[in-house]
Amino acid sequence: MTIKAAILGFGTVGQGVYQILQTKRDHLTKLAGAPIELCGILVENLSKERELPYSVFVTDQYEQILAQQPDVIFEAIVGEEPGFSYLTKAIDQHIHVITANKVMFANHGNHLLTQAGERVGIGYEATTAAGTPILGTITRLLQVNSITKVEAILNGTSNYILSSIQSEGRSFQDALEEAQKRGFAEADPTNDIKGYDAFYKLMILSQLIYRKQPSWETVLCEGIDQITADQFINAQQQGSKIRHIASIEVVNGKLNASVKPQVLPPSHGLYPVDGVDNAIHLIGDLVGPLTLRGAGAGQLPTASAMVEDFLYILQSYPVKQHI
Amino acid sequence: MTIKAAILGFGTVGQGVYQILQTKRDHLTKLAGAPIELCGILVENLSKERELPYSVFVTDQYEQILAQQPDVIFEAIVGEEPGFSYLTKAIDQHIHVITANKVMFANHGNHLLTQAGERVGIGYEATTAAGTPILGTITRLLQVNSITKVEAILNGTSNYILSSIQSEGRSFQDALEEAQKRGFAEADPTNDIKGYDAFYKLMILSQLIYRKQPSWETVLCEGIDQITADQFINAQQQGSKIRHIASIEVVNGKLNASVKPQVLPPSHGLYPVDGVDNAIHLIGDLVGPLTLRGAGAGQLPTASAMVEDFLYILQSYPVKQHI
Repeated sequence: MTIKAAILGFGTVGQGVYQILQTKRDHLTKLAGAPIELCGILVENLSKERELPYSVFVTDQYEQILAQQPDVIFEAIVGEEPGFSYLTKAIDQHIHVITANKVMFANHGNHLLTQAGERVGIGYEATTAAGTPILGTITRLLQVNSITKVEAILNGTSNYILSSIQSEGRSFQDALEEAQKRGFAEADPTNDIKGYDAFYKLMILSQLIYRKQPSWETVLCEGIDQITADQFINAQQQGSKIRHIASIEVVNGKLNASVKPQVLPPSHGLYPVDGVDNAIHLIGDLVGPLTLRGAGAGQLPTASAMVEDFLYILQSYPVKQHI
Repeated sequence: MTIKAAILGFGTVGQGVYQILQTKRDHLTKLAGAPIELCGILVENLSKERELPYSVFVTDQYEQILAQQPDVIFEAIVGEEPGFSYLTKAIDQHIHVITANKVMFANHGNHLLTQAGERVGIGYEATTAAGTPILGTITRLLQVNSITKVEAILNGTSNYILSSIQSEGRSFQDALEEAQKRGFAEADPTNDIKGYDAFYKLMILSQLIYRKQPSWETVLCEGIDQITADQFINAQQQGSKIRHIASIEVVNGKLNASVKPQVLPPSHGLYPVDGVDNAIHLIGDLVGPLTLRGAGAGQLPTASAMVEDFLYILQSYPVKQHI
């Protein structure tokens, strides 16, 4: 018996998954109880040169991936489509899916989860804070606890820029350029510095914790690009830091969510978080305050989350038998 | 069908478990798929007054607890015995066990885990850092990752004393008395300030991560009571903090463990941890550095870990049917 896996999208994250499946082959076989067979990789452009063994099936046709009858699909494509349509088709065929696609999942996660029901596993740890196991902590380790409040730093780019303005006295423009030079910000940084990226991740967290999202248009979403020099100076003089915080809590039975810069005093659980890290500070009604901090991006941390989800799904759901 | 649970020891932690089983009754029934029936509480002194409904069976005879045929036993007794003997007998009868007893588990955990094999679940999250889900994060959320290094603040009393010496300029004696007054240190604080408590927890972590412990006599175990005023002043002048760190890593195939005060620079993942909190900073070979911080003691956080373990065991192992 083997477990058949396919990868959709072979950019940074898809290649990370491929790499882990290779380097951890023996360990994964032992944990999963059967060897993992990579039955196909879907790419956009077949003519692009890739360092892959000839034995790996590479195609630009999704139907050819489905024809391989994979047990599990890793989706590492960017944007709502074609990711959403691909995963819908996969779930229809009882294929477990694991995604790193936050824009798609913030928009369509509820649809996919409903479609999957109890038969099909959906892994989406990688959509939020890369390998930092925020979602697993909440859903698997804190089942009895009720999460009364969440505050989180979910955008590494914004956090890097804010850290560098406050600790090195850089201007916003200067800090942004430095982040771009070091690969922490994209050429078009709009999604990060306007807060949209953190917003998507917060909506995924909301769905996970409260099984619903607030209406998107009611959520205040401010980025870090409107903070004035005076605001930075004031925070510094108070011994505080400005951080870009995504928060959600239930107030009088209503979800109260926002994404915006906030002044954090040294006593705040997220105050120490500098650089490109992500972190979540939550309150459980039994366990009390809990903070989890780790990498918010990167090839291996993101692929790590996907392969950890993969293993959990193999352990929790039946897979077909390919003798 | 009901699930029968018993509590051994009715001090702070045992009462916390009782309280959660009551207040979360409906939620637990839903999660476990059947109502939980508290079939007995074992106490040392039957004549002590307790606020319990008459319907709860209270006894000072362990055999009477076993006669109830519980599915799961919560052990919240202090010290190696009688806890170890009780749990051995329970496992013999295929009863799942959940313990908060770190001295017992550091000494006999391996024996109990071997005895339990695959048939019986053993929950011990509460032995290390109370409700902060360190053990679950490592065993359930980071299965594919190899943990290459762990550094942790595992004794809240020591951390409180060190924080208060460094931030408020107290003397050691003064800080210890303040900790005792606030209930963060016991009348006899030896186990905490000599490092023994952190040592036991580190041995439990070692067993969990590396499936073995170093020989106890080879592990350097220093407490916080020998730190000189000069050492505090030096650390402060460098912008660093002295923290009591339990660490373990594999160097050249050998487990390298120590428990001792260390000078942490601001860049260290454990530098921000002040007060009675516990925290763990680990390196996963895929996910990179990860820090988890939360309460290291307390009635509800400790009982929270036990009830979360309870639920996980119910979901992972078959329980007998009591119609």
